[in-house]
Amino acid sequence: MRQVNLKKLAQELNLSISTVSRALSDSHEISAETKNKVHQLAKELNYQPNPYARSLRNHKSKTIAIIIPEVDNNFFSLAINGIEEVAQQNGYHVLIYITHENNEKEIAFAHHLLNGRVEGIIMSLSGEVTTTEHIHILKNNKIPIVFFDRICEEADTVNVITNDYESGYLATDHLIKKGCKTIAFLAFLKTHSISKKRLEGYLDALLKNNLDINQAYIIDGTTDYNQNYEKVKRLLLLDNRPAGIFASVEQLALIVYEVCDELHLKIPDDVKVISFSNLRTASLLNPALTTITQPAFDIGKEAAKALFYALSKKITSLESKNIVLTSTLIERKSTSN
Amino acid sequence: MRQVNLKKLAQELNLSISTVSRALSDSHEISAETKNKVHQLAKELNYQPNPYARSLRNHKSKTIAIIIPEVDNNFFSLAINGIEEVAQQNGYHVLIYITHENNEKEIAFAHHLLNGRVEGIIMSLSGEVTTTEHIHILKNNKIPIVFFDRICEEADTVNVITNDYESGYLATDHLIKKGCKTIAFLAFLKTHSISKKRLEGYLDALLKNNLDINQAYIIDGTTDYNQNYEKVKRLLLLDNRPAGIFASVEQLALIVYEVCDELHLKIPDDVKVISFSNLRTASLLNPALTTITQPAFDIGKEAAKALFYALSKKITSLESKNIVLTSTLIERKSTSN
Repeated sequence: MRQVNLKKLAQELNLSISTVSRALSDSHEISAETKNKVHQLAKELNYQPNPYARSLRNHKSKTIAIIIPEVDNNFFSLAINGIEEVAQQNGYHVLIYITHENNEKEIAFAHHLLNGRVEGIIMSLSGEVTTTEHIHILKNNKIPIVFFDRICEEADTVNVITNDYESGYLATDHLIKKGCKTIAFLAFLKTHSISKKRLEGYLDALLKNNLDINQAYIIDGTTDYNQNYEKVKRLLLLDNRPAGIFASVEQLALIVYEVCDELHLKIPDDVKVISFSNLRTASLLNPALTTITQPAFDIGKEAAKALFYALSKKITSLESKNIVLTSTLIERKSTSN
Repeated sequence: MRQVNLKKLAQELNLSISTVSRALSDSHEISAETKNKVHQLAKELNYQPNPYARSLRNHKSKTIAIIIPEVDNNFFSLAINGIEEVAQQNGYHVLIYITHENNEKEIAFAHHLLNGRVEGIIMSLSGEVTTTEHIHILKNNKIPIVFFDRICEEADTVNVITNDYESGYLATDHLIKKGCKTIAFLAFLKTHSISKKRLEGYLDALLKNNLDINQAYIIDGTTDYNQNYEKVKRLLLLDNRPAGIFASVEQLALIVYEVCDELHLKIPDDVKVISFSNLRTASLLNPALTTITQPAFDIGKEAAKALFYALSKKITSLESKNIVLTSTLIERKSTSN
């Protein structure tokens, strides 16, 4: 890349590089006349200061990173939009890293971000968390991190989450109120911190209502679509098929719709369905899906606000705090009587 | 940020910074013994070379940028995944910039990327294109650019697109075959290069079938949801309501579903609907939506392949070429007789 650099400007103006550099940074050592000449030529030649060189001088990259498991998902894309809004207000650029639910990639990204490439990180853990050492390394390297949704319980920092336990309870209780005496719970249990909270809410709602807990009704999904499809199908082929299904993640609810289609089961008559979801089309599905909807955009905004507060105060190790936003139950046809 | 840098390593080992640096870059001037000592300490202290300093030395950022209008959209999120796959195979990082359909932001991003921050750009133009001078500036600065989907017609480079004219023709012809004699076309006409091609296909299919062209049936959407809702509602309240609707963009098709719900119109009995769409839930909608589905993931992959080919050959100004991938018509209930 042949670019207009300080050397080129200096040659053209017959000045030293140092003079040009100081003129551009508005040093008081340089005369107004020289400054004008330098600025005029810089504009003519479309001179842009080298961001790497500038970053070395400023020790600032004016960039933050978002590390998330996936992007083809309404929750994360809305959260990104919320983060972007705050970042742009602060004049920062956003780098987005996608782990595809892979812990190895997450670790590689974390190491890549260790030295000065970004000033801070907003993160939601990959599903396949086997080790969190990379989080501690980032913290030890004084890079502020804020977690949202899928948090790292071992890291003391700001977490922006929703009321997962309460929502789990609420969703289950909703199905019970609609007459379901047997309720299945679908989640990514092995991997998501949030699924465990939702499971607790589910179990407590069953206990409170004196309903049996049946392990066959608790389905642990994987990242493999076909495996999940088979698991849901086996569930719905049980002799004692559950009357209601509570999906902790949207992908699994959509599979329930597909399996019901194959098995000619009618939602909500044969089985009622409620799901955590930020799906744009929830109200347009056949039938419209009752959802627990997370405030995804606001979650992104709050996470970004916490990070930019830390950056503005030069706080590198954030105080441990949970910011809890409330999800909303939106009742639709998939759980009607 | 207190980091382990070359100076720190040099102090600990009582060596010069230059010796440490050369040891780490495996210089033949340094003894194996010294190299071992340096590497061992570097590992112990978790030393990471500063990426900015390294970039200055290598003149390489090992990073590419994606500039896209939005991310809460299945087409773009799938395309991102396709680009990511190729970038990761090449050991590159991906920066994602979202313009939110705003030309000003797009220009700001382009200027931000002028000097060495990224080695190449993959781009889909914002809807609100008022000027493309920034594209020419990027090209003049020898930054390779590949466009996908919403291309810049004035820029000579590689464009990865779908067969928009043919798909527009096919979608319209499909509605005609299903018995529609009056067909509306919904698009973002003022802004999308692709909408114009789809419109041409629509118009030619009408002409070929000796059907009238009615300007009242050609609806130009905006980025404002409420305005679009009102436009679609007015269309469906016409005395001569169209028998079929062809939506060039998914958002407008979803609005048709919502308006039909409000006006108690039945799809497909009262009005048939076909749309360009990569919606995960198209088959689950009420009724299932007939779509023209673009190979979004492959579009991303092809765009990235073209860019990495250029980077590997150090080609900064790509030869003008259109790579055309074929979209697929998937017939579902929304257009059935």
